[in-house]
Formats: sequence, structure tokens, C-alpha cells
Amino acid sequence: MAIFKQLFDEGTSTFTYLIADEHTRSALLIDPVHEQHDRDQAVLRELGLTLKYVLETHVHADHITGGGRLRHETDALFIAGKGTGLDCADRLIANGETLQMDSITIHALATPGHTDGCTSYRWENRLFTGDTILIDACGRTDFQQGSPEALFNSIQQLLAFPDETLIYPGHDYNGKWISCVGQEKTINPYIAGLDLPAFVAKMKALNLPKPRRIDVAVPANVLCGGANVPRAPGETEAA
Amino acid sequence: MAIFKQLFDEGTSTFTYLIADEHTRSALLIDPVHEQHDRDQAVLRELGLTLKYVLETHVHADHITGGGRLRHETDALFIAGKGTGLDCADRLIANGETLQMDSITIHALATPGHTDGCTSYRWENRLFTGDTILIDACGRTDFQQGSPEALFNSIQQLLAFPDETLIYPGHDYNGKWISCVGQEKTINPYIAGLDLPAFVAKMKALNLPKPRRIDVAVPANVLCGGANVPRAPGETEAA
Repeated sequence: MAIFKQLFDEGTSTFTYLIADEHTRSALLIDPVHEQHDRDQAVLRELGLTLKYVLETHVHADHITGGGRLRHETDALFIAGKGTGLDCADRLIANGETLQMDSITIHALATPGHTDGCTSYRWENRLFTGDTILIDACGRTDFQQGSPEALFNSIQQLLAFPDETLIYPGHDYNGKWISCVGQEKTINPYIAGLDLPAFVAKMKALNLPKPRRIDVAVPANVLCGGANVPRAPGETEAA
Repeated sequence: MAIFKQLFDEGTSTFTYLIADEHTRSALLIDPVHEQHDRDQAVLRELGLTLKYVLETHVHADHITGGGRLRHETDALFIAGKGTGLDCADRLIANGETLQMDSITIHALATPGHTDGCTSYRWENRLFTGDTILIDACGRTDFQQGSPEALFNSIQQLLAFPDETLIYPGHDYNGKWISCVGQEKTINPYIAGLDLPAFVAKMKALNLPKPRRIDVAVPANVLCGGANVPRAPGETEAA
């Protein structure tokens, strides 16, 4: 059985996910947060794990990725969706591609809409949806090339998995941790009973305030975090 | 990978869970509902499964178990918690005992409180909590030997599993399907921040109406459902 931990950053209500092969002790983190670097390193150390990969679901506007510093201090490779176009990434993973880490297989799903580079990751029956599907909500579409039409289609793509498929979101602001496809179909007010025009109208009417940290977070995240050290070609994993 | 399905009865807001070994096609159902007999049989047929066991989390007050008719029409054995004392069961499973169905191992956890015979079942990282923990709620304790003190202790026993352990409840009345230990610790108003005296006081103050179907459901369920056919000794699985 693999190792799986769901970690939470109170400051930005961000979930970070740890997945590791229990035999080889290789580990990956999805969406680490810069301010939680010490926590993440402590968890890795306590469990005797070696960080191999950092996976980003998108270029975040609300927090700086912890991937930059983690890459700097470990041998981990930085992976983001192809749609991000991030030059600093070690690998840009495209829709349908997989990442194999020993016994762990991660499937990439391009799910643009919140941003144009958003990628969800599937590991067995778990979907890590980033800001594409949140519990009872979804990512906003009013900045960073957001598109309600694209988001609608991406959400439908994720809802095509069986009802029992687990949904692990990028954030939650109300203490919720987990959902599944069946639950989101039933009660998510941005999903249940909404067709494309109704969804687009709902998203366009939201009129949300500008994210507090966007002017700091996005410039840092397009450089793969605060401690971006470009790798030499020989060190870079082939895509 | 095993087969897993979460089914719902709209009439009584009851979840029924199907677990099957994908290779041998042996299946078990947790908490089937009498009125959903045709649905359950159809699902088994469509998936090419053979029902081997029906597991009850407790003697229900809100619906008649589907286990009686299923046992009558298949070779399935009827299993309930030892605390139920059900003479009609094929096996009474005690705290700490396991049920092995090919590659599937089910661990029984005695979790009295809602009723004195309540049993939760653990399969890998999934807890089927019956009415012991509901999402954002818990079972009532004002009938069928209910005890808020016992329920508090049973809930603590389940919360001792890691935060990522999935919680599949016996019911939900608000469209929710799934939770986990970490989420229930954080936001369940019957759990978060409540010690034993506060929990007992909260439960005693609930003053709930009598369940609509209790006078029909309990007498049927203490006979293991509507079509109880006691097995000959040779047919009975040893406990």
C-alpha cells in the first residue's frame, strides 16, 4: 500500500498532497506551499522518504509554490502542465501522459479554465483537481487567462469518471477535505443542474475581489517558485 | 483493484456499499435496503458478481434490511455485529475479528452507542461507519439501547485512524457522500471541540421525533429482514 498524506496550509487554505511508494520510499508532492517548506521537509524526514517530484496543478495566484526551494534543496524535479508553458520546469506534462514513480502511476489531465495551464492528476481512484473542482465550488475564471467555457468542459471531463472517484481539491475554505464525483454532481452549486450557458452566466456574475497575493505569487510562480535554479540539460528528465 | 460501488436509497437516504473481488467476482453488500432488492440484484448481475455476504452495521430503525430476501434468493450469508445478538444471523462478528472474502479483508469494529450492537467495518483505508459517524453528524442515542457515553467512545475509536482514512456513512440527508477522519475532526459539530460531558449534554438535548418506520423496521430487522430462512447447521459459516 502506498503512503498518502493530505496536508493543509492555514494561511492560504491550500492542500498539499504527499504520495510515496512504501517500499522504495520515493515521494512526490502536489502543490507544496513556500511557507510550509519546513513542515514538508519534516514530514519527508519523519517518514524516511526521498522527494523525487513536485507536481503543480497550475500557476497559483494565492500562494508561492514550495517547489522552487524544494527543488533547490533536494533532487526533486519540478513538473507542471504543458499548458503553463513554464520554461523553468523540468518537465511539462501533457494531457494523457503519465508520470511513473516506482509503483505509483500519475495520469495527467489537462483541465484548463481556471488558468489555461491547469492540470489535474489522477492516481488510481483519486483525482487531484487543483482549482478546477473545489468541494461545492470551482476555481474562478476572471484572471490568468481564465475561461468559464473551458472550465465547464474540464469539469465535465473530470465528472466522467465513476461516481466513487475521490476528489481532492487544491483548497477548501470551510474545513472540508474530500469529496467524490457523485457528491459533486449531486450538490455542487456550480455543477448540479447547470448547462454551459448557465455556468458561464453564473461565473461572469461573480464579481470577485482581486486576489490579495496575486501580484507577488504569479511572478514568483512563473519562475517555478522563489529559489529557481535552472538545471543543466543533463540533469533534466525527458518529457 | 477491487470493485467498489456506493448506492443510495432515496426513500430512506440510506447508503448501501458493494465490495467485490474483481478476479473471483465474489461480492458483499453492506446495509442493503429491502426496497432496493431489484436494483441490488441488477447491479450484481450487470457486473457478473456472486453475492457471498450481507453485512449489517446494526439493527436499523428506519428501513428493513434487504439482507433477508437476498439471503433467501442467493447463497449469501448474513453477518451482523456480535452485540446485536441476532439469532437469525449466519455469523455474529466480534470486535477485532475479520471477514476474508478472497482478496478482500473486512475488519469489524464494535462501535456501540447508536444501538448496542452497532458495528463499523474497515476495508483498507475505508471505514463504513453506519450510524456511528455521519457526515457532520452522528447517530441518535434515544432508542434501541442508545447511549451517548458509549457513542462518544466509539466515535473516538474511529477517529484514532489516520486523518486520511475515508468515512462512508450509513446515511446522508443533504447530498453528501463521503468524508474522512480529518474532516470530521475539523468540522463535525458533534465531534469538533466536544469532550464527553459536552457531547452527552448535546445528545440529551436533541429531543427528536420518533422514527417514522421504527415499529415496522425493528421487528423485521431482528429477524434479519422480511424473508428470514434459518439455515441448517451444516450451511452456517463458523464464526
